[in-house]
Amino acid sequence: MTSPSIPRDKTFDYSAEMMEKRRAFLEAQRSVSLPHTGQTSFDPASLAGNIENAFGATQVPIGLAGPLTINGEHATGDFYVPLATTEGTLVASYSRGMGVLRAAGGVTTTVIERYMQRAPVFHFESARRARDFGQWLADNLDGVKKAANSTSSVGKLSHIEQYGVSKMRYLRMNFTTGDAAGQNMSGKAAQAACQWIIKNCGFTTRYTLSGAIDTDKKHSQINTLHSRGARVVAEVTLPADLVREKLRVETKDMYRARQVSTLGGMLAGTSNNGLHAANALAALFIATGQDAANVAESQAGLTYVELNDDGSLYWSITLPSLIVATYGGGTGLATQRECLEVLDCYGAGKALKFVEICAATVLAGELSLASAVVGGDWVESHDSLGRNRP
Amino acid sequence: MTSPSIPRDKTFDYSAEMMEKRRAFLEAQRSVSLPHTGQTSFDPASLAGNIENAFGATQVPIGLAGPLTINGEHATGDFYVPLATTEGTLVASYSRGMGVLRAAGGVTTTVIERYMQRAPVFHFESARRARDFGQWLADNLDGVKKAANSTSSVGKLSHIEQYGVSKMRYLRMNFTTGDAAGQNMSGKAAQAACQWIIKNCGFTTRYTLSGAIDTDKKHSQINTLHSRGARVVAEVTLPADLVREKLRVETKDMYRARQVSTLGGMLAGTSNNGLHAANALAALFIATGQDAANVAESQAGLTYVELNDDGSLYWSITLPSLIVATYGGGTGLATQRECLEVLDCYGAGKALKFVEICAATVLAGELSLASAVVGGDWVESHDSLGRNRP
Amino acid sequence: MTSPSIPRDKTFDYSAEMMEKRRAFLEAQRSVSLPHTGQTSFDPASLAGNIENAFGATQVPIGLAGPLTINGEHATGDFYVPLATTEGTLVASYSRGMGVLRAAGGVTTTVIERYMQRAPVFHFESARRARDFGQWLADNLDGVKKAANSTSSVGKLSHIEQYGVSKMRYLRMNFTTGDAAGQNMSGKAAQAACQWIIKNCGFTTRYTLSGAIDTDKKHSQINTLHSRGARVVAEVTLPADLVREKLRVETKDMYRARQVSTLGGMLAGTSNNGLHAANALAALFIATGQDAANVAESQAGLTYVELNDDGSLYWSITLPSLIVATYGGGTGLATQRECLEVLDCYGAGKALKFVEICAATVLAGELSLASAVVGGDWVESHDSLGRNRP
Amino acid sequence: MTSPSIPRDKTFDYSAEMMEKRRAFLEAQRSVSLPHTGQTSFDPASLAGNIENAFGATQVPIGLAGPLTINGEHATGDFYVPLATTEGTLVASYSRGMGVLRAAGGVTTTVIERYMQRAPVFHFESARRARDFGQWLADNLDGVKKAANSTSSVGKLSHIEQYGVSKMRYLRMNFTTGDAAGQNMSGKAAQAACQWIIKNCGFTTRYTLSGAIDTDKKHSQINTLHSRGARVVAEVTLPADLVREKLRVETKDMYRARQVSTLGGMLAGTSNNGLHAANALAALFIATGQDAANVAESQAGLTYVELNDDGSLYWSITLPSLIVATYGGGTGLATQRECLEVLDCYGAGKALKFVEICAATVLAGELSLASAVVGGDWVESHDSLGRNRP
Repeated sequence: MTSPSIPRDKTFDYSAEMMEKRRAFLEAQRSVSLPHTGQTSFDPASLAGNIENAFGATQVPIGLAGPLTINGEHATGDFYVPLATTEGTLVASYSRGMGVLRAAGGVTTTVIERYMQRAPVFHFESARRARDFGQWLADNLDGVKKAANSTSSVGKLSHIEQYGVSKMRYLRMNFTTGDAAGQNMSGKAAQAACQWIIKNCGFTTRYTLSGAIDTDKKHSQINTLHSRGARVVAEVTLPADLVREKLRVETKDMYRARQVSTLGGMLAGTSNNGLHAANALAALFIATGQDAANVAESQAGLTYVELNDDGSLYWSITLPSLIVATYGGGTGLATQRECLEVLDCYGAGKALKFVEICAATVLAGELSLASAVVGGDWVESHDSLGRNRP
Repeated sequence: MTSPSIPRDKTFDYSAEMMEKRRAFLEAQRSVSLPHTGQTSFDPASLAGNIENAFGATQVPIGLAGPLTINGEHATGDFYVPLATTEGTLVASYSRGMGVLRAAGGVTTTVIERYMQRAPVFHFESARRARDFGQWLADNLDGVKKAANSTSSVGKLSHIEQYGVSKMRYLRMNFTTGDAAGQNMSGKAAQAACQWIIKNCGFTTRYTLSGAIDTDKKHSQINTLHSRGARVVAEVTLPADLVREKLRVETKDMYRARQVSTLGGMLAGTSNNGLHAANALAALFIATGQDAANVAESQAGLTYVELNDDGSLYWSITLPSLIVATYGGGTGLATQRECLEVLDCYGAGKALKFVEICAATVLAGELSLASAVVGGDWVESHDSLGRNRP
Repeated sequence: MTSPSIPRDKTFDYSAEMMEKRRAFLEAQRSVSLPHTGQTSFDPASLAGNIENAFGATQVPIGLAGPLTINGEHATGDFYVPLATTEGTLVASYSRGMGVLRAAGGVTTTVIERYMQRAPVFHFESARRARDFGQWLADNLDGVKKAANSTSSVGKLSHIEQYGVSKMRYLRMNFTTGDAAGQNMSGKAAQAACQWIIKNCGFTTRYTLSGAIDTDKKHSQINTLHSRGARVVAEVTLPADLVREKLRVETKDMYRARQVSTLGGMLAGTSNNGLHAANALAALFIATGQDAANVAESQAGLTYVELNDDGSLYWSITLPSLIVATYGGGTGLATQRECLEVLDCYGAGKALKFVEICAATVLAGELSLASAVVGGDWVESHDSLGRNRP
Repeated sequence: MTSPSIPRDKTFDYSAEMMEKRRAFLEAQRSVSLPHTGQTSFDPASLAGNIENAFGATQVPIGLAGPLTINGEHATGDFYVPLATTEGTLVASYSRGMGVLRAAGGVTTTVIERYMQRAPVFHFESARRARDFGQWLADNLDGVKKAANSTSSVGKLSHIEQYGVSKMRYLRMNFTTGDAAGQNMSGKAAQAACQWIIKNCGFTTRYTLSGAIDTDKKHSQINTLHSRGARVVAEVTLPADLVREKLRVETKDMYRARQVSTLGGMLAGTSNNGLHAANALAALFIATGQDAANVAESQAGLTYVELNDDGSLYWSITLPSLIVATYGGGTGLATQRECLEVLDCYGAGKALKFVEICAATVLAGELSLASAVVGGDWVESHDSLGRNRP
């Protein structure tokens, strides 16, 4: 085990030279050739704050889906959606769904709320003290907010959920974070809040900055209930004729399949009774410089559909924990910024617009895949039985 | 709403010309400038089967973590791990964890099983018929396998889980899929299996190719129980001195924090009582051409730790639903292939090796972040109290 | 704290004298008067094996619901169902539901499977050994069965689920247990199986008789998936006219409310998307000498409904973990036995019949309560709006 | 199917004559003999409001456990606990646990909060309207409270949780209900609140009185998070010597088994990572006239333990959804009231005391069973291996 350390330079690590040095190191150590990962278009200096030990870039191909018509409060009009993926048919399928949505007059999007969470836990000598602390905290929320809000001009503590278990008090602090996803600024604000609490509460206590109910980079029921990042709904009503013509299935069958899938979802204990929100989100996240690890949380969803008397199909998906940014993180990198600009979503004041575009894109994919599953596979028993007995 | 259609060419769509044409289209339509997304290093023709309507690529910076010492059955020795991310400190944090693992003699990895699933549901006129069909299916598994296995030289039906609910029989078919992730080949094989079943079972029935318990691109308890993709364990025992020196915390405190986080996880109903598996996986997935949407499933985990009498800390994480490939999908694209080659994981016979590298990388990040949370925030009450009452 | 010990007699504890002695003790210690709890009809000697330190009995009033028409495989015809409860309207509501079911031709019941579980966990030095042990176990199932089956003439090991996590192998052994609920005989058989495994497996291992995935006296997703006790379906199709006449609601509205409740259930993370299976089960359990603590498991359910083109409503409930007995436990006590006899369900060969009666009773209550909720509260918007703006 | 109707009398149904008439009816219809169920000690007239079609009573034997030492805020001192059960060893096991708790100085109990829920759902034409309604509701809470509180002198609306999904707004109203369990008074108050809302909100809407997230007679994650009925903690610290002497196990082994069971619980998706809270609760509920169907909710729990440096074991269980009453329901029936009086828990002002007794009793059983599992089964590998290879 004498593998050498990765080359680093304390002063000029974000430079083309160091990136090249590390590629050369890898080529030597691993007997590989790296002609492509070094083909980067960004300024290495721009990577500071985004990555360490950079040696190149992965090029993820971007396809274009759309136009997607959105009737949102923040996103309105037609959009061409860049999807970075390597999964064949994904872009085509989303584009197909967007065509249907467009023919139906567009998708309506609604952001219900948007907060980022950090969830410290406070430890006490007994459950009773923990409970009493909870009351103290509720009574002293103004002080906590002041302490938290001093750490950032953007991140503001909105409200604190409290959960008493054993001799602990689990908190879930909810912050507004502007156009950033906000995990870091929430962490910093939560830390300041906790320190203020320790100083002022008069309880013998200690805390851990995360008691795990944030639940960062994980799915959870608490996210589905209380949101993480944005809670957003995309909804549409599709006429039966349109579905028949464009998706070649009956709304009635689409609807019936939904019931069976929802039941399957309950049986399986799933995070999402819809189809594949993660596909849209991963592709959008990579294209636009989001933290792709947040697909873990963002993939959750609640699908609700209704079959109307006229045969039209109301379809909605609620994404309770969609985590995105139009500022900070990877959004400012060269190619990522271009993709955000394609959506007119780069920078300040654009986060809610981007949230709505994400939700609308998800909906397009749900309809497209749902109709494919139903259309291809729903074999009526009388037909099949005839062929069954030769 | 007269937004024009995206330019396509039926014959030569995978060409530099068409990519450029679409960029020009976007620039015109959206009044943006796209100098960077067009800077691609791959051959446009190589994108066929990976994407539609391609117009460029997102460049996701790759950092290098390691060396990571693995004592696996498929991966053994030291590895330098390429992580594609835009989240600052992520690579540094994983690298720090790898240093600790290395000092502890490396991480032991074990693949427990690996299958890809497709979950058709069969519909009957009554619960009784559905149940009896289940018995018929169990008795005729050989025929089903033969039908399924005829569709691919690689994908083979291993076993079928059965769940009876109402008048349906939910199946969950498990396939071996070689070095591919295998969703598509499993779908094709399942389709063939279902058609054979319909032809031969003698029951009045119809089926839907997915009853949602696969559970594709979603988290679920059934994944945690019965795996999806690979089920893999990474484990290590860390001496107390090593942890104190390298991570600047006590193993005792690391251990205690685990209990509180696991309780928090149960309270929240989380998919993972660990910390942030999704971070490692998203970065590895993007670097190596995996389907990043599978972060939805892959992020799940079960962490189990023990504090030994000598103060050393046994730490394990079980990833029950890790979905990766070393063949097919995006693994063959220019930069992605290079990253796989850095790990000697490109192509046939490498999937289990890559599974082990993923799990070991995840473990490195768990230790690094866990110690950071504990080290920074675990304020002993006696200390803090002194300062509390000035 | 000098509270005296409860009077006991090593030899004659199950006697009227000792029961009276304990009542006298309580009356003296707590200054209460206990004229009623001593009014028991059973022979105190009959309590051996059912309770310790007996001092009397709670009298739970029993109401009669029915007739309930069942088209089962084990229960067929009309039944009068004894329900022991203190919740007003419960018996009346179930009786109402039974009237509707009867008018619809009766409820069809199907037992899908029935096993009792005990879930030992085996510990190893590494995940790899744990996995290999799992393979050994699969290869040596015959030996395990022989050891398990030697402990009882009734309890037989059917199959073993295996789950690998960390360096443990969690098993879930499934036993047939005749007409008993079978927790004790399963425990005994599992113990024997484990001892045989330890003797023969050649692995360095130890085990704990329960690793908690049984999951005894708790709800769990694993119960919903893999059953605990009986998995049974009750189903019926209700004509629209019948529902309108008898329940005074439209099937369309009943159906719509189901969708909203199921969505609510997913949101809440519920064990049951139906209404109140626990009410029927608790009342039946108390009346017939079941272990009422098993309401914890038995209350789970999956409701699936369909609205047919003719307006009729198909309604089913699947109870995945219904734990009952017609032999052993409290079934032989004086009043409990009488209630089982009312159902012709006392003793050997009656367990599956009783399972079906339980499921059918549950269904009756679902329909009754569902229609009450819908009928009373579903206020059409146009009506309400008129009144809204005076 | 000409089964006759059950005899009823519109005026004098709660009479010995009618009870006897129904027994005679059953005896004739079912050819059974019912000498015991008719042996009731209560006044038939007292059953009005508790049951319909009464024909007798089940006699559930009651055993006495204790003394149980409680250091609560409402329950203090020693208690003898009546447990109505037919499961042998249950009373003995709880009594054993109580002895240990007593030797450790008693169990500390803390009621964190106590509310009863009713969860109406409001329907709108779009998600946007549903969200805006949520804001209106938050702004008009005083009016809602006034309407709700007019329905009862005891039941008061405390706070409303709101969850937006699709075009619905799911509410979860939390009521204080004095010494009653309060489901009915909460329902009535919620109904009044909803009608006031409809009248005053100015939104085009309709509502259903329950959208299922209450979650009545079911387990749910929302109960674990936000309580249903009482949220109560029982905790104790057990010296190592005491555990060794009285329970014949090492605290270290007890602790280790807890980790494995909690992991098993996460794997299984369980409602309770403890052992068998349902056993204590079902037995207490039946003895004291609680609604035994609420075992469905009350069985949930979160166990948290710590192993201290001196080898002592801190053990706590948090019951998040314990539903009990000391007034109303079955608490006033003859034998049930006597059992409440044994605990000095009958009537007004006693609910929190009874909550604490329930939690303390649960804890006793957890310790007793946990030590039995560990003591009997934890076979050290070196021992067993010696015997393994003869």
